[in-house]
Amino acid sequence: MVKRYLNVTSLDDALALISREFSCTPSAVQVPLELSAGRITAAPVFARYSVPEIHLAAMDGIAVVSTETEGASEQKPVTLPHAVRVNTGNIVPPEYDAVVMIEDVWVDGDRFTIRKSVAPWQHVRPAGEDIAESEMVLASQHQIRPHELGALAAYGITEVAVLAVRVGLIPTGSELVVHGTRPAPGHVVESNTVMASAMLTASGATCTRYSMVKDNPELIQKAVQKAVLKNDIVIISAGSSAGTRDFTADVIANLGEVLVHGIAIKPGKPAIIGRVAGKPVIGMPGYPLSALTVLREIAMPLLSRYRLPVPDPEIIEARITSTIHKEIGTDEFVLCALGRVGNRWVVSPQSRGAGVQMSAVRANAYIKVPANTEGYEAGEGVPVRLIVGQREAEQALLVTGSHDPVIDYIADMLGGRGIELHSTHVGSMGGILALKKDECHAAPVHLLSPDGDYNTEYLRRYLPGVELVLLCVAGRQQGIVSRDGVVFDQLPDHTFINRQKGSGTRMLLDFELKKAGIDPSGIQGYGHEATTHLAVALAVKSGEADAGMCVYSAARALGLPFVPVAQERYEIAIRAAHMEDPRVMALCDAIASPGFKEILGRLGGYDTTETGVRRVLP
Amino acid sequence: MVKRYLNVTSLDDALALISREFSCTPSAVQVPLELSAGRITAAPVFARYSVPEIHLAAMDGIAVVSTETEGASEQKPVTLPHAVRVNTGNIVPPEYDAVVMIEDVWVDGDRFTIRKSVAPWQHVRPAGEDIAESEMVLASQHQIRPHELGALAAYGITEVAVLAVRVGLIPTGSELVVHGTRPAPGHVVESNTVMASAMLTASGATCTRYSMVKDNPELIQKAVQKAVLKNDIVIISAGSSAGTRDFTADVIANLGEVLVHGIAIKPGKPAIIGRVAGKPVIGMPGYPLSALTVLREIAMPLLSRYRLPVPDPEIIEARITSTIHKEIGTDEFVLCALGRVGNRWVVSPQSRGAGVQMSAVRANAYIKVPANTEGYEAGEGVPVRLIVGQREAEQALLVTGSHDPVIDYIADMLGGRGIELHSTHVGSMGGILALKKDECHAAPVHLLSPDGDYNTEYLRRYLPGVELVLLCVAGRQQGIVSRDGVVFDQLPDHTFINRQKGSGTRMLLDFELKKAGIDPSGIQGYGHEATTHLAVALAVKSGEADAGMCVYSAARALGLPFVPVAQERYEIAIRAAHMEDPRVMALCDAIASPGFKEILGRLGGYDTTETGVRRVLP
Repeated sequence: MVKRYLNVTSLDDALALISREFSCTPSAVQVPLELSAGRITAAPVFARYSVPEIHLAAMDGIAVVSTETEGASEQKPVTLPHAVRVNTGNIVPPEYDAVVMIEDVWVDGDRFTIRKSVAPWQHVRPAGEDIAESEMVLASQHQIRPHELGALAAYGITEVAVLAVRVGLIPTGSELVVHGTRPAPGHVVESNTVMASAMLTASGATCTRYSMVKDNPELIQKAVQKAVLKNDIVIISAGSSAGTRDFTADVIANLGEVLVHGIAIKPGKPAIIGRVAGKPVIGMPGYPLSALTVLREIAMPLLSRYRLPVPDPEIIEARITSTIHKEIGTDEFVLCALGRVGNRWVVSPQSRGAGVQMSAVRANAYIKVPANTEGYEAGEGVPVRLIVGQREAEQALLVTGSHDPVIDYIADMLGGRGIELHSTHVGSMGGILALKKDECHAAPVHLLSPDGDYNTEYLRRYLPGVELVLLCVAGRQQGIVSRDGVVFDQLPDHTFINRQKGSGTRMLLDFELKKAGIDPSGIQGYGHEATTHLAVALAVKSGEADAGMCVYSAARALGLPFVPVAQERYEIAIRAAHMEDPRVMALCDAIASPGFKEILGRLGGYDTTETGVRRVLP
Repeated sequence: MVKRYLNVTSLDDALALISREFSCTPSAVQVPLELSAGRITAAPVFARYSVPEIHLAAMDGIAVVSTETEGASEQKPVTLPHAVRVNTGNIVPPEYDAVVMIEDVWVDGDRFTIRKSVAPWQHVRPAGEDIAESEMVLASQHQIRPHELGALAAYGITEVAVLAVRVGLIPTGSELVVHGTRPAPGHVVESNTVMASAMLTASGATCTRYSMVKDNPELIQKAVQKAVLKNDIVIISAGSSAGTRDFTADVIANLGEVLVHGIAIKPGKPAIIGRVAGKPVIGMPGYPLSALTVLREIAMPLLSRYRLPVPDPEIIEARITSTIHKEIGTDEFVLCALGRVGNRWVVSPQSRGAGVQMSAVRANAYIKVPANTEGYEAGEGVPVRLIVGQREAEQALLVTGSHDPVIDYIADMLGGRGIELHSTHVGSMGGILALKKDECHAAPVHLLSPDGDYNTEYLRRYLPGVELVLLCVAGRQQGIVSRDGVVFDQLPDHTFINRQKGSGTRMLLDFELKKAGIDPSGIQGYGHEATTHLAVALAVKSGEADAGMCVYSAARALGLPFVPVAQERYEIAIRAAHMEDPRVMALCDAIASPGFKEILGRLGGYDTTETGVRRVLP
């Protein structure tokens, strides 16, 4: 029998239920002062004693009786009957009521002469000037700032009572292996509690990752019982769906109650909110991006209910570069690359596969497409939630077009200059369209024109009248990757893995097939597409296909034979209008640098003769 | 002989010198993945293997040969000749090329029937979908975000090479005691390296606090030699001035060279920048706020030269409530309380004493008054640098006027509602003036009118025609605090500590003296002023004076006898226009709450009959 969700709860209702059903009282723990920065005070903090406790000299000099200095002047110096040498921080003895800076004193043995009268209490730090014994230093619910630790130390505070929200994380799944172990086929590295722990710790929670539990309801139940005793919140990773191996809901129902099973969010629908011993127990789906979404949209708001300062994301409006269609009734969260192109914000949705963790690495923002809409149309202005600070997003360089591993190395070079290169892999034609709509800073392209030149023909056709700069990255070898050294003419005898339509590599393949008189329909797997050079090489390495076409560096990265077919001109097209943008200038500098040629040489398969050469169109 | 600074370097020149003189190359260290969040990658990070390494089922269901599903429909179900049960994450065996969700399958033993055809690779996660072996996951110089730890764990990464800037902190001074020890008179708690460590750690540095060193040049020299070997930067705390006990400059000169001695900043002038073994050695002044300024203005920019992501403060323009006068040629840094009153930002400078660490606790912003100006006039719009986030600053409630310890308890109650109460102690008249200029949200006042009523007379005189709400905090006992139970009539026989002019307490004292026919000039110490109730009580406790006038709670806090003189109406005056402000509403709620009456009862000396009662003027 197939279990289905009885009903799915909207995100808003799920959050309202959390507010309603749980008191969310944080624990208080004493932490050593040195570890208290960033924590939230659980109780007011009071000074243990006054600072200073007694009058102190605020300057190096002499302590004096102020009335004895009256009348002193340049013309009429006064040698003081009573005075004593004090340094900064020394006690001012009770018989004195002022301090004269040593620079203003003429010293002759024990005789001190001054040429200026002083007011009472000059250069004296009175007792309690900084704080008086028993005064409140910090109120409750205050996030301790690093510099405040100095004051707290000075006021005698060695430990601070701070809020703690203890979160127990239980990874479940028979297929799991601990991270650091290379997973055998069908095994999966347990990474979701690593992510959960880092995210929730950064939000102020105190996390415990428990041992992995196999898909066995009794074992999971024992683990949850144990975790509930020691934590304020328990999160069970995986097993939250409604399949035959999904035990989280049953376990929670056995130990307490399931309040919500299934939340109308995507990714993350198979989430559970339950209660065991009065405490919230969250069922977190196993797909990494589903887990990420549930952590961000359910667990973080839950932490803020416990009074941890979880900030709402900054929101800015940006023009979306591709259409998002979705079902009504579900809040959909789409990871994005956000950047400022010219004077407007542009946002490019990343892959929406819930298993593609790299989307979360590549993203600097995300879009919440609300439940009551069917999505967004390309070109619309949409609200975008920032993952990084706005200043960091301002430094994003959006590179959209054909993929090549060297783009990652350029990103690496730019990182040192504070620029984050966000590469969206949509093939050469996709890059040209992004350039046409002015939705990226730079578009890597390699499109063979009928006249034998690269790129110019297509750019002229799609961006007529727009002044463009073409910056040569390298002459790049494309060839056949295989396990056994397959050459181009043998393609009809082998299974093939192709690149997606519109990619320069596919167009080059078609050009070469035509030239050689080979009918594509005779190649098995011609319709089977991968979207990057490395994915092609990997399909070959894994045995999924015998051969594919890719760049040398991808074959070499996976240790596979490579037989060159053609050299193409891999260029980056940039609107001339953006050439003065500091991010674009840094990109041009990086490509023109000797260090970049060295990298190309090391990766292999690139002709660097033209690297850094610019052409201007039209 | 008195040493003086040979010359003082401007802040800009000091920072330029740092850029010029030091290469600032960070170290790279390997840290376990779990500890890498927030750190900066020192080298690119590559995937150890592909994820997934082989095609996996993306759904619970059956693996099928897609061509065998052709033609299946509701009308014409197809029973598949080949199919196998797979769960999410299972391997899709090589002979299959698609997965059908179990919900769409009619299962009868080993026979699987479907009613819809499927496309090749449907619900299959292809090998390398997430990442391919050897692909770059993170570029260099990338600040690792917590959620990325999941991806890194999944890609086989257990350790990450991250930037490290090792900072050695050496506290010097014979008067120092370790924090947690109650300092004897003349001793000082070593708190500056506690603060430095917390601040620099929060900015990404790796700090080592060395043992305290006495004021002995040989010992300091040994400590510096040792620290320079193990760190990228060394900071010597205290002894950086030009006095007879200041050895930092000589020690640096002996071991290397002093590049700058004296920087034109206030506080913080006696700072040193030196070089030992090619490494920067900073002399940090001993006064806490001088140390804070040198850390923020010199050490943090130095860390950012080492490529740590030290953010510049956010700057907003605000109206300054009091005049700041300063010398031309010095950049002066003034800690402030910043808040939004009505629709404009208002900023109140705090005490400028370099020893008053509470100023840094109370401040949520600071002003840099540039070297080339003589200061700012009250009412000017000035650029203000935020210490907290802007959203937090938006929640600041500015309370300006007469001090009472209960204000701190109100702050404590509001903390739980996300509101930070910033109290500026300027006495009742100061509060009325701030209210008049609309530069605070609320002004606590207790001014006896000639007609015997409290507060109304002065408010009507200074804010004619402005609608005001007076919210009663409590009836408050003022009385004589002493060590020996001095009563009011005995004041002429004892030394006195007074409050500042314009404070309600002083006006009440004067009123009572007049009533009793006592001549103020006959009271020794009448001109000696303290600015808070607790400071008065402390002066009495320390023996500086025999008696003073304050509220009961202050006497009780320090365990001193208290003889009541009068009860006054301690009220908070608020412009009616601000009564709908959520912060003001929260203030009113807190004062009207039963919990607040309990606090007043516990503190003692308050009549709560009228607590929470509102009066409207005019």
